[in-house]
Amino acid sequence: MSPSASSEPASDRVRLRRKRERGSHERAAIDAILDEALIAHLGIADEHGQPFVVPTLHARRGDVVYLHGSTASRTLRALRAGAPACLTVSLLDGLVLARAAMQHSANYRSVMLLGKATLVESSAEKLTALEAIVEHIVPGRWAEARTPTEKELKATAVLALPIEQASAKIRTGPPMDDEEDHGLPVWAGVIPIVSEARDPRQDPRLAPGTPAPPSATAYRRPGRP
Amino acid sequence: MSPSASSEPASDRVRLRRKRERGSHERAAIDAILDEALIAHLGIADEHGQPFVVPTLHARRGDVVYLHGSTASRTLRALRAGAPACLTVSLLDGLVLARAAMQHSANYRSVMLLGKATLVESSAEKLTALEAIVEHIVPGRWAEARTPTEKELKATAVLALPIEQASAKIRTGPPMDDEEDHGLPVWAGVIPIVSEARDPRQDPRLAPGTPAPPSATAYRRPGRP
Repeated sequence: MSPSASSEPASDRVRLRRKRERGSHERAAIDAILDEALIAHLGIADEHGQPFVVPTLHARRGDVVYLHGSTASRTLRALRAGAPACLTVSLLDGLVLARAAMQHSANYRSVMLLGKATLVESSAEKLTALEAIVEHIVPGRWAEARTPTEKELKATAVLALPIEQASAKIRTGPPMDDEEDHGLPVWAGVIPIVSEARDPRQDPRLAPGTPAPPSATAYRRPGRP
Repeated sequence: MSPSASSEPASDRVRLRRKRERGSHERAAIDAILDEALIAHLGIADEHGQPFVVPTLHARRGDVVYLHGSTASRTLRALRAGAPACLTVSLLDGLVLARAAMQHSANYRSVMLLGKATLVESSAEKLTALEAIVEHIVPGRWAEARTPTEKELKATAVLALPIEQASAKIRTGPPMDDEEDHGLPVWAGVIPIVSEARDPRQDPRLAPGTPAPPSATAYRRPGRP
C-alpha cells in the first residue's frame, strides 16, 4: 500500500491536485492541463445540431491552442467556416473506490475551451504552430526532424483557438462517502492511474547506425521518473 | 531499445494494432476499444450550434453504452430532451516520430458513436447500468460496495446510447515518411505510451483493519502485467 497523498513531495502539480476543487478558471491550471495532455477532443456540430467529437493533436503557445490537419478534412473545413468549437482535454489520475457504489468516481483534470478557431494564413505562423505541435509531442524533436516544405505547408490547414472561454475541472483526493457509510466494513481508496512512456522502438526501415536521440531515449511523461 | 512490433507475441489486441487501418466498422474492434477506455468524451450541441464536450464515465453492455449523472446536469437534460449526441473514446498507444516534421503523429485507437440517448426509466435497468459502470471502473467492485438505495437511484439519471452509428479509427505501426526522406540521417520510430495503475491508496478515514480487496490490490489495466 502506498502512503496517502499527504506524504507526497510538494510541487505545483501535487498542490493543484490537493485542492479538490472541481471547477477552476485559473489560467495557470488551465495551461498546465493543456500542456500535459497529449491529445485533445475537438467537438463541432453540423447544421442539424449533430456534434462530432474527434481526437486530435494540439499545442498551446501563449494564449492560443493550435490544431492542424489536412485542408480537405471535414472538421477543419467546418471550423474555417466559423463553426463554434469545443476543445476538451482530460487527464485521468485515478479510480475512486467509495464504500457506496453510487460514489464511485474518477480523479481527473480537464479543460474545456469554447470559441471559434481562425485559420492561420501566414507561412511564418504556420511554421510556429507546427513547431509547437511537434515539440508538444516530443520536446526537442523539431530541431531533429526535416523542416516542412512550402508544398507541405500549403497542404496543411492550421487553426488557432484562443484561450478565452476556458474552464478547468479537477477532482482529486479520496472518495466522498456519506457520513453514515463510513462505518461500513468496505475498503475505500484510490487506484492511481498514470500515463507512461516505454523504450522507443525504431522504425524497421531505419538506416543502420542511426542513433536514437535523447528526445526519444530520455522521453518522459510529466511527473514520471 | 525494444524489439520492433513484428517480434511481439501474437494476440487479438496486437493483431488489431498491426492492421494499420485508420477506419474500421468492425463491431469487435469497436467493443474492445469501448471496453478498454476508462473515460469517454460526450459531445452535445446547444440551440446555437455550440458544442460542449465533457469527460464522463461509461460502460458497455451488449449493444448499449450507459452513462449516468445528476438529474440536474445540463448535459443529461439536453440528452433526455432528444439532442443528438456523439460519444468518443480514445486510447493513446504511442508517439510517432518521423524523419519529416510533418509526418509526426500518434498511434491510437478511437471509437465514435453517434445517436440519441434514451432515458433509462426502470429501477431494474438503472441498477444494471450502474453495475456496469462500477464494474467498468474496477471489475469485481459491485459486489463489494454498498448497493444504491431507491433515493439514490431517483437522484441519478441513467442514459443508454445504442451502438448503431459507430466507427473505429486506428493508427498503428511505424512512421510513414515519404520515400525520399528515408535516406535522411534522422532517427525515426515510435515511443509507446501506456496507461498503468499504481498501488491503491487507502482513504485516510478508512476504519482500521479493513483489508484491501483483490479488486483494488490486483487491479491491472488491460494488457499490463
